Amino acid sequence: MKSLVSAAQLGRADLERIIERAIGFADSGHSWDPTLRGWTLATLFFEPSTRTRLSFELAARRLGADVVSFDLSGSAAVKGESERDTVLTVAAMGAQVLVVRHAIDGFPTKVAEWTHRAVVNAGDGQNEHPTQALLDAVTLQRRFGRVEGLTVAIVGDIAHSRVANSLMTVLPALGANLVLAGPSEWLPDSPFPLAGTLDEVVVAADVVYLLRVQRERGAEPAEGYHAEWGLDARRAAAMRPEAVVMHPGPINRGVEVSDEVADGPRSLILQQVANGVPTRMSVLAEIGEAL
Amino acid sequence: MKSLVSAAQLGRADLERIIERAIGFADSGHSWDPTLRGWTLATLFFEPSTRTRLSFELAARRLGADVVSFDLSGSAAVKGESERDTVLTVAAMGAQVLVVRHAIDGFPTKVAEWTHRAVVNAGDGQNEHPTQALLDAVTLQRRFGRVEGLTVAIVGDIAHSRVANSLMTVLPALGANLVLAGPSEWLPDSPFPLAGTLDEVVVAADVVYLLRVQRERGAEPAEGYHAEWGLDARRAAAMRPEAVVMHPGPINRGVEVSDEVADGPRSLILQQVANGVPTRMSVLAEIGEAL
Amino acid sequence: MKSLVSAAQLGRADLERIIERAIGFADSGHSWDPTLRGWTLATLFFEPSTRTRLSFELAARRLGADVVSFDLSGSAAVKGESERDTVLTVAAMGAQVLVVRHAIDGFPTKVAEWTHRAVVNAGDGQNEHPTQALLDAVTLQRRFGRVEGLTVAIVGDIAHSRVANSLMTVLPALGANLVLAGPSEWLPDSPFPLAGTLDEVVVAADVVYLLRVQRERGAEPAEGYHAEWGLDARRAAAMRPEAVVMHPGPINRGVEVSDEVADGPRSLILQQVANGVPTRMSVLAEIGEAL
Repeated sequence: MKSLVSAAQLGRADLERIIERAIGFADSGHSWDPTLRGWTLATLFFEPSTRTRLSFELAARRLGADVVSFDLSGSAAVKGESERDTVLTVAAMGAQVLVVRHAIDGFPTKVAEWTHRAVVNAGDGQNEHPTQALLDAVTLQRRFGRVEGLTVAIVGDIAHSRVANSLMTVLPALGANLVLAGPSEWLPDSPFPLAGTLDEVVVAADVVYLLRVQRERGAEPAEGYHAEWGLDARRAAAMRPEAVVMHPGPINRGVEVSDEVADGPRSLILQQVANGVPTRMSVLAEIGEAL
Repeated sequence: MKSLVSAAQLGRADLERIIERAIGFADSGHSWDPTLRGWTLATLFFEPSTRTRLSFELAARRLGADVVSFDLSGSAAVKGESERDTVLTVAAMGAQVLVVRHAIDGFPTKVAEWTHRAVVNAGDGQNEHPTQALLDAVTLQRRFGRVEGLTVAIVGDIAHSRVANSLMTVLPALGANLVLAGPSEWLPDSPFPLAGTLDEVVVAADVVYLLRVQRERGAEPAEGYHAEWGLDARRAAAMRPEAVVMHPGPINRGVEVSDEVADGPRSLILQQVANGVPTRMSVLAEIGEAL
Repeated sequence: MKSLVSAAQLGRADLERIIERAIGFADSGHSWDPTLRGWTLATLFFEPSTRTRLSFELAARRLGADVVSFDLSGSAAVKGESERDTVLTVAAMGAQVLVVRHAIDGFPTKVAEWTHRAVVNAGDGQNEHPTQALLDAVTLQRRFGRVEGLTVAIVGDIAHSRVANSLMTVLPALGANLVLAGPSEWLPDSPFPLAGTLDEVVVAADVVYLLRVQRERGAEPAEGYHAEWGLDARRAAAMRPEAVVMHPGPINRGVEVSDEVADGPRSLILQQVANGVPTRMSVLAEIGEAL
């Protein structure tokens, strides 16, 4: 694998290999590995996201790479320069691996075409966020020992969510069963069954995966969103004994999830964050082997 | 010592050990030391301060740590996310040591409670800035060969100064005698003697420690502040032969201190800056040994 | 060479040595070299420029230096602190090499006087940008095997261009012949011949070096600038078979250069960027040997 722009590139064997290596990195405390020694990785974030950027940077440095960070959002961009010229300039400075976030769907694919460099999609518009779905799969594998056969309910602002798109590729490929739930205007066409209410979902799912309401992409939770689609203590109490709660962060407390549930024993939210670095190490190690 | 949130944690033996190690690092040109190798240190600055942040980062890297830097001031913060969630997310990414600056008194203690990580207070509100007081003690030890018995006059905006609070703990614990001087509305209740005028102070002190007027915390120097409380060449000429001038920086020239004095032979202002890196190396090395 | 503030410091032997070493670094893929191991380099950019800053940072890290980056533009500066105090503070933190960009002509020379540290000019006002001229010489040497005897036309906003000033020193010292062309209000007094039109220039030059119209320094291209002074496909077709197009970037497409030419086979624009890192490695290695 030279680039990772879409989760759809990955067959089940690829997914399992990446997950297994990520768990190996996690179990060894992100131990240093020289796979990217001598390579330079550049982060090109046209949308700001400190935490995703730093998760990639930590992962790259743990693999021995030299890392440079280009903040290209808003005022940091060079006036009058095209985005293609910016990308070509960064590539020309010697970066072999480009980690790209952009508000436009498909931008990472363009970067790969323009530069012929290895590209990792760190989120493009409403399209995909493959490493998020991978770290979620790692989190499930570590908690349940499997992804196969788990019932995962994806809840909320699915229409605006690139995370949901990547999850809808990765989790079924690993044998999970998906159910979607949320306000009807936020439900996409998909092959997955829809649930009418959150109460119906919580009793049946192994995993309730709450999505961030993407206010920054124009979504606005209706009055009563939390009452209808938020996971509170009452609903969490109805979940299966082993069932868990996930969220890609940053969470809107009191919207998607109540304090009690976010901080409660079912919540894997911080484990998801913790699995980000070893999962990105695993993806970058795959890429390093193909360079 | 796992965390350093207040100078009051440190007994005299702790202070002397930290100072001695800092001087060792300084004398060897900040030589590389592997105490933090394999650890990740994150700076979480909810108030911006490039120089303090970079002083910690240089210190951490000289000890072999991996460093990530979170600028959480103003627009860089994630909208709608609680500060506790931000802190927990950073900790979950794998940082074992958190260097925290925040405008609220006591915030670093909260971070330690939330995360159970090692925390270093890099300045909290008007409360404390312990590494500044330690580097000042290092500066005095290097200049006078002792802190014991020195008369240190702390002058100016004491009420708004976290530096003053930490100095009032560290220096007496090392045997220095403090005198406070400044506009009456900026003098706190304290066990230390007050001087009525700066002229009275300068003739008696070994150290005149001028505080920054904290305009960013609402303090405004009265008209005539420099004439009454600023250290100018005339007053500096009245100081004891060996007496020195200190200031935690950044200085307001023409307010707390005149150009002639700031740049003159009594000024230790740049030595204070220079001692920042080895002092922070010493503090971080103590923490590294406790991890 | 302890500092590089002006290209005029460099005699022909110096230039040839720096170029030769830069090509060595480029040919070996910027291979790691320990010349700056144990040294700390600080970038002090009073004007923002992510790409130049990162080019220096990559170069310094490839030479083993520890790098800290001070963004001192606009709101990042400390209110009320003089620039001299900022510079002295950074130097006191332990940086032996200071890479400085500033809007004021001659500022790097002042930094060297204030601090007695090694200083590299990364662009000062409308005065000089010596490493840009050096990387351009490296680019020509790699393309033509020589700079001697090449005819280089410098075109456009020469009056506001620090790049042009450094080129007018470096290229003639290496034996190139310069011709200047552009709107009359942007032509400086110089010993070099002037061309009246771009059409006249393109047929005779080995190198057409287009300058960025420096809108950020108050220059505004007149209506019809591209028609009169822009390099488009028609004019590029009139160039000598081996002739090339250069530009220091960032380019204003449709102003100085058309898309077809910028992306065409004569364009060395991305090679210039690529040569930035090894050229700065070469300059920093010279400085490291003098420390």
